[in-house]
Amino acid sequence: MLREFEIIIGYLELCFLQFFLDWLRALADRWMPVFILSAVHSGSVVLYTLWSKVYREPEWSDVVIFNEQPNSCPGIHTDPVCRKRICESCRTNRLIHYINQAKHTIDLAHLTFSHRAIYVAVVAAHDRGVRIRIVTDSQMLSVRGSVIHRLWSLGVPVHTAPARTMMHHKFVIFDGQRRIIQLEREQQKTFTGLWGSRGLVMTGSLNWTKQGTASNYENAVICSNSKSIDLYQQAFEELWRNFNPMSSDDVTYEDLRVNNYGKNLY
Amino acid sequence: MLREFEIIIGYLELCFLQFFLDWLRALADRWMPVFILSAVHSGSVVLYTLWSKVYREPEWSDVVIFNEQPNSCPGIHTDPVCRKRICESCRTNRLIHYINQAKHTIDLAHLTFSHRAIYVAVVAAHDRGVRIRIVTDSQMLSVRGSVIHRLWSLGVPVHTAPARTMMHHKFVIFDGQRRIIQLEREQQKTFTGLWGSRGLVMTGSLNWTKQGTASNYENAVICSNSKSIDLYQQAFEELWRNFNPMSSDDVTYEDLRVNNYGKNLY
Repeated sequence: MLREFEIIIGYLELCFLQFFLDWLRALADRWMPVFILSAVHSGSVVLYTLWSKVYREPEWSDVVIFNEQPNSCPGIHTDPVCRKRICESCRTNRLIHYINQAKHTIDLAHLTFSHRAIYVAVVAAHDRGVRIRIVTDSQMLSVRGSVIHRLWSLGVPVHTAPARTMMHHKFVIFDGQRRIIQLEREQQKTFTGLWGSRGLVMTGSLNWTKQGTASNYENAVICSNSKSIDLYQQAFEELWRNFNPMSSDDVTYEDLRVNNYGKNLY
Repeated sequence: MLREFEIIIGYLELCFLQFFLDWLRALADRWMPVFILSAVHSGSVVLYTLWSKVYREPEWSDVVIFNEQPNSCPGIHTDPVCRKRICESCRTNRLIHYINQAKHTIDLAHLTFSHRAIYVAVVAAHDRGVRIRIVTDSQMLSVRGSVIHRLWSLGVPVHTAPARTMMHHKFVIFDGQRRIIQLEREQQKTFTGLWGSRGLVMTGSLNWTKQGTASNYENAVICSNSKSIDLYQQAFEELWRNFNPMSSDDVTYEDLRVNNYGKNLY
């Protein structure tokens, strides 16, 4: 009962804040210069941080284990909540669920990315306006079935590691708090998108390839621990700064053709 | 003030419980049969679980990022709390710190393991009585510098994956609660070692090789989230059950010679 009461009070506070900030924004649009907009945004971030200390739901954690037994749901996998112990489709769908949940940003650092179903989810996220950035290895770019070129041609920015070293990371940050604030500053927003979203980081041994999900023994851990997300975000920003953007020189006609017609996507 | 008071009360309770359980144990050693010993152990596990809900410290999380700039502390690395942004030795030492902290058990699932300094820490853990189990890939066993054979010859049990698939996991569980309880049941203990230890799981992209720590871009995340540890522990037990124990047929004289004289360890 007390808990329900707290939730109601929390929502009322939220509505009031949104109303108040919209009003400030309306004022700002007419009369106020950029620095006031930015001060209002900072204020709304501070309010969110205070609010989350009181009302935020407990930490989320999840582990997805893949192993060597593929196709244990033979034919077309139709049951979305498959209870079979070993089912490649439903395990992959658990990963895709997190991509579908992303509201604002996805920062992706993967050695190699060629999994068809995960690719479709990333493209869907891109289409609904999620800001995606990719950091990847330069030598694995041209691996058979890699979808990096195709994402790049759809407008997703890609930075690649120098050729001499291996970008062996396999992590993704969804709705990282620091990245959302940075984007909102750039877009001069007043009301922060932090309220409705929860940051998550996914890491582990899994490469986003069909061999990873359907053949190897693999693990992926997903958690909402804000300290971990912050440390991964710092690592991502550092890679992003130090790596070179992918240019059209890196893309051959063959890369786009193969990927566009999906012949070698697996 | 209230917090300090709670801590003092917590310790007093702990002392009282330990005294009470020691007394029960003394009784048991004289008169009681095995099932009473086991009941007392279960009781102490339940008490620990209740206690940890009230007094347990907040969740631990840590992320160690490796990248391509090796030897940034040239020559002999002497400062144990090196503040340099890029220093391979101090990053590796952060991993080794967790191995040194393990009190009861280490469950290790790694594709390949050839890092000299980490190997030394694992052997030290084995020597101080930590129960280590290793699950690894059968094809990577004979990779140059692999220390698995040597650990096996020291008495660490090793199970290997079937040859046709890749055991691509890179995770380690330190002092997993479930494993500690299982071992204590086997050893017919009454007082549980859970009180003084904290479970941790380490995962990420890092293989325990010198290339991983000194050359690639890599990450390792360490967390004490009990749900994650439980899920990893389940995965480990499943691998352990399904894989075959390593036997002397898998070890050649060459493997042991190379490893024993450390020539190719890197």
